[in-house]
Amino acid sequence: MSERRSSLCNARIEYSPKLPISLRNGLCGVVIEKGAPTQSAADQEQIRALFPATYGAPVVTFSPGQSDVTEPLTIGVVLSGGQAPGGHNVISGIFDGVKSISEKSRVLGYLGGPSGLVEDNYIEITDDYINNYRNVGGFDMIGSGRTKLESEEQFAACANVARTRGLDCIVIIGGDDSNTNAAVLAEYFVREKVPCAVVGCPKTIDGDLKNEYIETPFGFDTACKTYAQMVGNIARDANSARKYWHFIKIMGRSASHIALEVALQTHPNICLISEEVEAKRMTLSQVVRDIADVVEARAEQGKRFGVAIIPEGLVEFMPDVKKLIAELNDSMVTLEKDLEKTERVSEKVDTVCRHISAESASVFRSLPESIQAQMLADRDPHGNVQVSLIETEKLLIDLVGKALAGQSKYEGKFKALNHFFGYEGRCAHPSNFDADYAYSLGYSAAVLAAHKLTGYISAISNLAMGVDSWMAGGVPTSMLMNIERRHGKDKPVIQKALVKLDGEPFKLFASHREEWAATESYIYPGAIQYFGPSELCDCITKTLELDSAPSTTTTTPPVKAAG
Amino acid sequence: MSERRSSLCNARIEYSPKLPISLRNGLCGVVIEKGAPTQSAADQEQIRALFPATYGAPVVTFSPGQSDVTEPLTIGVVLSGGQAPGGHNVISGIFDGVKSISEKSRVLGYLGGPSGLVEDNYIEITDDYINNYRNVGGFDMIGSGRTKLESEEQFAACANVARTRGLDCIVIIGGDDSNTNAAVLAEYFVREKVPCAVVGCPKTIDGDLKNEYIETPFGFDTACKTYAQMVGNIARDANSARKYWHFIKIMGRSASHIALEVALQTHPNICLISEEVEAKRMTLSQVVRDIADVVEARAEQGKRFGVAIIPEGLVEFMPDVKKLIAELNDSMVTLEKDLEKTERVSEKVDTVCRHISAESASVFRSLPESIQAQMLADRDPHGNVQVSLIETEKLLIDLVGKALAGQSKYEGKFKALNHFFGYEGRCAHPSNFDADYAYSLGYSAAVLAAHKLTGYISAISNLAMGVDSWMAGGVPTSMLMNIERRHGKDKPVIQKALVKLDGEPFKLFASHREEWAATESYIYPGAIQYFGPSELCDCITKTLELDSAPSTTTTTPPVKAAG
Repeated sequence: MSERRSSLCNARIEYSPKLPISLRNGLCGVVIEKGAPTQSAADQEQIRALFPATYGAPVVTFSPGQSDVTEPLTIGVVLSGGQAPGGHNVISGIFDGVKSISEKSRVLGYLGGPSGLVEDNYIEITDDYINNYRNVGGFDMIGSGRTKLESEEQFAACANVARTRGLDCIVIIGGDDSNTNAAVLAEYFVREKVPCAVVGCPKTIDGDLKNEYIETPFGFDTACKTYAQMVGNIARDANSARKYWHFIKIMGRSASHIALEVALQTHPNICLISEEVEAKRMTLSQVVRDIADVVEARAEQGKRFGVAIIPEGLVEFMPDVKKLIAELNDSMVTLEKDLEKTERVSEKVDTVCRHISAESASVFRSLPESIQAQMLADRDPHGNVQVSLIETEKLLIDLVGKALAGQSKYEGKFKALNHFFGYEGRCAHPSNFDADYAYSLGYSAAVLAAHKLTGYISAISNLAMGVDSWMAGGVPTSMLMNIERRHGKDKPVIQKALVKLDGEPFKLFASHREEWAATESYIYPGAIQYFGPSELCDCITKTLELDSAPSTTTTTPPVKAAG
Repeated sequence: MSERRSSLCNARIEYSPKLPISLRNGLCGVVIEKGAPTQSAADQEQIRALFPATYGAPVVTFSPGQSDVTEPLTIGVVLSGGQAPGGHNVISGIFDGVKSISEKSRVLGYLGGPSGLVEDNYIEITDDYINNYRNVGGFDMIGSGRTKLESEEQFAACANVARTRGLDCIVIIGGDDSNTNAAVLAEYFVREKVPCAVVGCPKTIDGDLKNEYIETPFGFDTACKTYAQMVGNIARDANSARKYWHFIKIMGRSASHIALEVALQTHPNICLISEEVEAKRMTLSQVVRDIADVVEARAEQGKRFGVAIIPEGLVEFMPDVKKLIAELNDSMVTLEKDLEKTERVSEKVDTVCRHISAESASVFRSLPESIQAQMLADRDPHGNVQVSLIETEKLLIDLVGKALAGQSKYEGKFKALNHFFGYEGRCAHPSNFDADYAYSLGYSAAVLAAHKLTGYISAISNLAMGVDSWMAGGVPTSMLMNIERRHGKDKPVIQKALVKLDGEPFKLFASHREEWAATESYIYPGAIQYFGPSELCDCITKTLELDSAPSTTTTTPPVKAAG
């Protein structure tokens, strides 16, 4: 096999992920402590009504001790949604956990995401098989998929699978939506007397699945470090050549956690935070003006170069662009035929602008033709503009260039290059932190399964303190929920965590950004290191560090909404 | 300082680069062995006439021994052209080398590239200063620039600087052109009796500065490993999600060395090699057809995903696109005014197509509008199309999509994402190989300087064998030259090394590509490791390994030109 693998894969496979103290004696050596009954984050009555069987369950914590667990377990495991470094480690943790009870325990890997579960499409995970995937990136051990488990038919199919395969527990490794659906499935199983627990594990590189009980999802650490490596390398290039601006869009969906973390790791001249843009109700032209001001001020110092980080979801947080997108979504379905009449973007734009508000038409006409083309061409199956495909980094370069050209102070052409990082980070080999954390989450999920705890999400806390201080346990998923209106319906969901403007990570950024804008305070993190001194290999994200620290870092006044 | 630096920078700064045995006793412990007089690679009479003073000098090799070097040296150093990992190490090697003779030795760092030398704009490099830059990426220690040293006025200014500052040697760290110009400057200095040697160091990530004596330029190793990390991560994402093709363009100017090396490290489904496209005279539509065939064949196996690597310079190697670009370059200057009359790309295209050949017009019209816009908008100061800005990766996605849509066999939309990697690799922290190699090149340049050898390029050989077997020395730059016609004039230049289709790296690739196309043989190299087991930290590129190995690897017949 080794010739088929890189040297790093071979080395990582030999790595032994670290577990919290409570999990170091196998599943038979863990005892459960239950706290008081819990309540949901908000909308308690509605959530209780939706989860009559599983609502109010206690938070559980694990300690070393002699347990009464003796029976082998059969666990079904599903990877749901986008890849995140550590997915294979969660499965390894579950595998090693249940095997610590008995060699007769089994782990069935459902293939290609939740649809594999519905269709009973699985492989049995063996020692030999899993040993190829320990501590390495990707979800390719069993694949992933984006099917949502939401309908009664799907739940019934899952119940059938659970009974047929004798599953003691289904572990769903996913983001906020997947964990919500896992809780709904858990409730369904209790109601339908399916003797199978359902447990979730918090996964997403985007960092938006976190709260009082989930300090960070796994994958965020590695993805951010990978993007920070790239951004740092580009910043060093900018600072060496001193002739280009680099506009770098970074994945992260709506939330700007990744952009913020990468900024804290690299100190770019500019980093936009969507949540701040929204709070200040900044329009596209205001955002452009702010960027142009920094570019101009640096040019006055003879510095016609720099680095700007742009969060993926930015455009949706600007009120004028948001309105434009909404109007495009409304109008394009009816205009489809008219738009097909010509290949020429400019003619399509003319057609569309006759059918949207004057304000939106003006915004649309201000966009470069390539962006107009993209917004018209790339639509999802419902005919909606695919916001994630909008090349915001190019859009801003174009508009900043135009804004500067209108200035007498800025001479010559604005030279900027664009980059987008996303797919580079989702399947990186997990950092030691993510390897340990994801493995511990899996191991912890196995403990929950062994104790027939259902509707829980596996949780490891005290993450900023080093593995010896980590606390393992589980949190009732219903406890993390509130009711949100989605597609015109009230739905129980885990609150998505956006960047808090009064949180320590943002405040630290805000207190430094003016200095970073004017100077070259760049930090060059370089490639993730897995071997070597601990301060190099075991460091955590700034976000986790700051979220976990007592509030002392800042003297910045709170952000005010503009005009 | 340490708070201003990443943990990895702090750790790397402590690294001691390894030297070949002959250089381990300081400059006073090196003796020079001179070989027989040499000849240029070709065009001997012309080159001899152009380099009367420096032509024919012997290759020199270094051995341990007692030398008569005792006087302190003053060296001027210049970084020329694009960044490459290891630049700071070359300077550190020079610094430590000359300081090994005497603490009174000095190194002057000329700022911002060759223009800094012409303008006598420098900083004196001190112990404290250089210690911030040891073994870390970037050229920011003294900056770089693209000014070419070509004119008599520049040479005279350099002579003046050399005399005024008492320089014993100027070391120019650069690619093929910069090293050529260094040799011309050396010749000028001898002729004008300027008592200053000029020595070159072979730098470029592109890998195109290599020959019998220069086994590889520094920077290629680290850059390729950085791109391979990214490509591997994306390949794993493709193989996990199984829903997208990823088209990845990779820097490297004309030569496809980087693309080929990254392919050998990652085993993508497709990798285009410009040199092969040229040898087979493949048109754009043929290249598109070949890619579409692989996409289609994979789709028939249910695999609607994959990874394709595209070398940066590809379009210039396709005869039809090359012709189009030449015609655009010719016609656009005269059409400038007409083109400015409209903002609309489609109208500009109509205008241009009336002024170019029907064949080129047909190629131009076949391109997506965004590419047409780019070719019309982004022109260099001479009005020429900037080939490096053409988004070949998007172009191919668009055309492959259209080719597949015309097929009955391929159902549904071709889903592909595009990436471009370049700036991410040029300033990465040098791998151990590049750190050692670049440091040794610098140290070796200091030896050449101490022995007043001018018109040489620093050379380390036996690189595939481990540092203990490395041989240090110098090669007369004129020996690497031939005459090429550039802009209508005969010029002495170092031959640019393109990928050889009968070379071992290409043959190994060619012998596997059909297998890689059909399967998921991906290798996931992951991040460069600087600490840990030697097979992880000290590995060399496949290109260097195969170029250095006896020819045994392949059974593939040589490539034939098509049609």
